[in-house]
Amino acid sequence: MSQLFKDLERARVGEGVELDSLLAAVKWSADGLIPAIAQQHDSGEVLMMAWMNATALRESLATRRVCYWSRSRGKLWRKGESSGQQQHLVSAALDCDGDTLLLQVDQHGPACHTGRRSCFYVALDADRARVSSEPLIDPDALYGKGQA
Amino acid sequence: MSQLFKDLERARVGEGVELDSLLAAVKWSADGLIPAIAQQHDSGEVLMMAWMNATALRESLATRRVCYWSRSRGKLWRKGESSGQQQHLVSAALDCDGDTLLLQVDQHGPACHTGRRSCFYVALDADRARVSSEPLIDPDALYGKGQA
Repeated sequence: MSQLFKDLERARVGEGVELDSLLAAVKWSADGLIPAIAQQHDSGEVLMMAWMNATALRESLATRRVCYWSRSRGKLWRKGESSGQQQHLVSAALDCDGDTLLLQVDQHGPACHTGRRSCFYVALDADRARVSSEPLIDPDALYGKGQA
Repeated sequence: MSQLFKDLERARVGEGVELDSLLAAVKWSADGLIPAIAQQHDSGEVLMMAWMNATALRESLATRRVCYWSRSRGKLWRKGESSGQQQHLVSAALDCDGDTLLLQVDQHGPACHTGRRSCFYVALDADRARVSSEPLIDPDALYGKGQA
């Protein structure tokens, strides 16, 4: 863990650093990415996890519309650009060792490309996996073809 | 995405597959890992993100005590084994494309190695990062030295 994150462990509430210093200390992957968890700010429902690079994170913080990095398409992905189901950014936080983001968002409609509210719909028990929710919208109505 | 996850997209609530088939289709990293988000089941607070391999996931589902894979120590990590701050597994779900887990847990005390309830305490805005919560417990009281 970088010294910056060790120093923040002992900092008081409200103390901090410039965003540029923080981003220089973030534990980006070899591809320059960090996982970002999106949680609906009022209900607490965890909607999805996707990836951001520094550009996507800076854009999201500045515009308050969530922008990810699409690993499959290899480009910035402004959530909702093909489906219309945008995410408004309410707040963002990094974790203790600087390798994961938690976004509080206001998600319009389904977050999942299947038309479900949340991507986490395959419930696991010790011997089986079962689908636990229905789509809100038929995915064919969300896209010609594409991603959320 | 594997055919199994495509098939689950169109499955009805309650339909599913054997856990072994599902685990064979999960998108494990090159190191055989998948990120796992831990959420306090009743408050909705997102506590941490860590990693699981298939052994850790099977053990967690069977024993209902959350077991991760520690990348820094290169071994199974039964959460709380050094700090006493265990996680009881309430439920687990995989996401639509089989590359992220969401765990509903009952976390005893702080989840974070800093003594804070949640690891996500570095709040970001467009130009600064600020600490947003205090430790519940002095981390020196949690460990001689070690990880949560």
